[in-house]
Amino acid sequence: MTISTQFLASDKFVLLDKNAAHRPLFTESTKQLMKQKTTEISVQIAEFQNILYAQHQHKVLIILQGMDTSGKDGTVRVVFGAANPAGVRSVSFKTPSPHELDHDFLWRIHQQVPAAGELVIFNRSHYEDVLITQVHQLIDHSEAKRRYAHINAFERMLHETGTTILKFFLHIAKDEQKKRLEERLQDPNKHWKFSEQDLLERQSWEAYQTVYQTTIRATHTDYAPWHIVPSNSKTQRNLIIASIVAETLAKMDLHYPVPHPEYFAIQVD
Amino acid sequence: MTISTQFLASDKFVLLDKNAAHRPLFTESTKQLMKQKTTEISVQIAEFQNILYAQHQHKVLIILQGMDTSGKDGTVRVVFGAANPAGVRSVSFKTPSPHELDHDFLWRIHQQVPAAGELVIFNRSHYEDVLITQVHQLIDHSEAKRRYAHINAFERMLHETGTTILKFFLHIAKDEQKKRLEERLQDPNKHWKFSEQDLLERQSWEAYQTVYQTTIRATHTDYAPWHIVPSNSKTQRNLIIASIVAETLAKMDLHYPVPHPEYFAIQVD
Repeated sequence: MTISTQFLASDKFVLLDKNAAHRPLFTESTKQLMKQKTTEISVQIAEFQNILYAQHQHKVLIILQGMDTSGKDGTVRVVFGAANPAGVRSVSFKTPSPHELDHDFLWRIHQQVPAAGELVIFNRSHYEDVLITQVHQLIDHSEAKRRYAHINAFERMLHETGTTILKFFLHIAKDEQKKRLEERLQDPNKHWKFSEQDLLERQSWEAYQTVYQTTIRATHTDYAPWHIVPSNSKTQRNLIIASIVAETLAKMDLHYPVPHPEYFAIQVD
Repeated sequence: MTISTQFLASDKFVLLDKNAAHRPLFTESTKQLMKQKTTEISVQIAEFQNILYAQHQHKVLIILQGMDTSGKDGTVRVVFGAANPAGVRSVSFKTPSPHELDHDFLWRIHQQVPAAGELVIFNRSHYEDVLITQVHQLIDHSEAKRRYAHINAFERMLHETGTTILKFFLHIAKDEQKKRLEERLQDPNKHWKFSEQDLLERQSWEAYQTVYQTTIRATHTDYAPWHIVPSNSKTQRNLIIASIVAETLAKMDLHYPVPHPEYFAIQVD
C-alpha cells in the first residue's frame, strides 16, 4: 500500500478526535529521520515542479483545509519551501470582501486556479463556503447540498481540463488545538498569528467536526480525493503530505517537452 | 562601500558590452565560496521574508530586466528559491493579450504589485513597453518620453504607499548570449527555453543596448533605483543580486508585530 492510498477518505469515513493522534509512520522511523526524509522529498518536489513548469501542460492544485492552528501555513513552508517561485503559487483565502460576496462563491476561487505548468496551493478554499456557513447557520441544508454539487462539478471541470487535484484535511484534536493556541498566546513573536476569532470558532469545535465529516464525504471523488492527515504531530503531517504530493507527481508522466531536432542545425550569428 | 551602492546606475550611466564581463567579486573570492555565500544569503532572505509576511506592513517589488538568456529565470530560482511560497510571488509578463492591450500599459502591471507583507518578483515588466516598442518603432520618441513619466509617477506612487522597489538590469555581452543560445540549441532538455523569436530580437542587439541605456537613465530614481549587474558570470550575478536584496531588507526595520500584553492572560477552554 502506498502512502497515497493509506490516508484516503471515503464516502463513509468517520472523523474521530482520537485519530488525530495516530502515529503510523513513527513505528518505522524516528522523528529525526522523518524530518530528514521530508527535506529530501521537498527537494524532489522542487525537481518535479521544474519539469512541470518546463512541460507547460499539466496543472496541479493542492487544497489545504483544517481547523485553526492545524498547520496549513507550516505545511506550505516546509513541503513547498524548496520549490521555484516561478512555478509555485500559494493563495490564502480570507474572509470574502463585499465585492467578492457580490458574486457566486466560486468566482474568486476560479481566478486563482493553476495555469499550465503551475502548482498552486490553496490555504483555505471554497470549502470555507460550506463549512463556516453551515456551522453558523448562514446557509440551510438544501443550499449546502446545492453547493456540494457546484463544488463537485467545478472540480470535475478542472480535472477534465488538465488539473490534478489533491485535497488534504489536516486533522488535529481539540486538546492539541488548546496546546497550540496557548503557545501562541505565551510567545510574543506569535501574537500576530492569534485572533480572538479563533476562540469563538473553537466554541463550535464539535459542530465543525460534524460539518467537516459531512463535507468530506460529499466531496470525496476519484478526480479530487480527500486525504485525512493525522496532524497532532507536525513532523508526521509534513512527511505524509510531502510523500503524497511526490507520489502523485511521480505518476504524472512529467517530462521535458519533446526536443525540436531542427534546432541542432541552427547557427547563432 | 556596500554592494548595494557599488552597482547603482545613474542618469549618466553608459552601457558598454565589455562591462558585462567585469568580475569585481572574483578578486576576493573563489567561485565555490561565492556559491556557498549565495546559498547562505538566500536563507537570510527567506528569514527576512517570513518577518515581512508576519509584520504585514511593508511591500517589496523586485524587477528583473535583461536580454534573452541574461538569467532572469535562474535568478528567481537561486536567489528566491528558499523563500516561503506564502509570501513570495513571481510574475512573468508575456506578450500582452488583446484584452490587456485594450488598456493602458500599466493596467496589467498594477494588478500584480505586492500587497502588504508580500515580496513580488517581476520577470520582465512594464519596461518591455518602452523597450521592445522603441526598438521596433511601435512608439515614437515623444510617446516614449510620456511613458517614462508615467512609469516614474507610477513607481513614485508605489513607493509613497509603502513599496520598496529594486530594479536589476542583468547585463550580458553579445558574445555571451551567443554562447548561451548555442547551449540551449545543443541540449534537447533546454529546447523548450528556445524561441526563434530570440534570434530575431538578437538582430536588434545594438538597438536594444541603446534603448536600455536611455530607459535606465530616464527611470533611475531615488525611490526606484536601477542596479546594473555584470551577468556574464552566473555565480557572480546571483551573489550580487542576493546581496543587494538582503542588504535592502536588513535596512527596512522588519520586526514581528508588536505583541498584545493582554494575550498572556487569555485562558483557552
